[in-house]
Amino acid sequence: MQSKDKQQSDEDPEASQRRYVMSYTPIIFRDKLSRFKDQWSPKVIAELNDYQFKLAKLEGEFVWHAHQETDEAFIVLEGSLDIQFRDGLVTLKSGEMYVVPKGVEHKPVAIEECKILLVEPKGVVNTGTAGGARTAKNDVWV
Amino acid sequence: MQSKDKQQSDEDPEASQRRYVMSYTPIIFRDKLSRFKDQWSPKVIAELNDYQFKLAKLEGEFVWHAHQETDEAFIVLEGSLDIQFRDGLVTLKSGEMYVVPKGVEHKPVAIEECKILLVEPKGVVNTGTAGGARTAKNDVWV
Repeated sequence: MQSKDKQQSDEDPEASQRRYVMSYTPIIFRDKLSRFKDQWSPKVIAELNDYQFKLAKLEGEFVWHAHQETDEAFIVLEGSLDIQFRDGLVTLKSGEMYVVPKGVEHKPVAIEECKILLVEPKGVVNTGTAGGARTAKNDVWV
Repeated sequence: MQSKDKQQSDEDPEASQRRYVMSYTPIIFRDKLSRFKDQWSPKVIAELNDYQFKLAKLEGEFVWHAHQETDEAFIVLEGSLDIQFRDGLVTLKSGEMYVVPKGVEHKPVAIEECKILLVEPKGVVNTGTAGGARTAKNDVWV
């Protein structure tokens, strides 16, 4: 994500003494989302200590599952997502988030495709302890 | 964030057997941002295990600092943010993020007010090891 470009600056007296300036690359959600089409298959875009940020496209109904070891953060970037709980639900739209507490059964449902950012520890399996055919491969970067 | 509402559902055979349905509340960035005006003073909106999501409004130049114990994630919600490093910079716009690695000196700079979402462990001090007058109080929820 970083490359060395030879560059001079005349704006900053400190910078003029540097021979190399690193080029740092932002992580652009829209660009990353354009690189995959598969749904219910989270793609890693960044790591923060032992946590990962993952983009996912969701449409239809997922399976009931829970993560016994961790909370899970859902941030909706585009569209609308329902997270069903056994006793209710929360509807998230773009610019909204929710943290599902560890151990709580939930089922994501999206009437139309929605695009989300997940934040959770490395190694979390998308189907939790439920397993099954909807289980996605982990640590797939985009 | 949660309240019990007596509610009946005729859509779901399981639900009809429940007497109470929990009401779950989304965390709406725009609403939370409307509740404070102070800049460079991150406000907690959610916790994920021992991590926090914080909203902040930034304008002008911050101080050079580093966090020796943790990476720090910046997600820009509105406006534009430069994160200066000693050897370069990254510019983030709405829908873009960057993770500053632990121990790396950085200085956030925003020409006009920008609104960001920070993700980092509980207890991280905004000025890192630099300290000083710009140090904000921690664990202030909004």
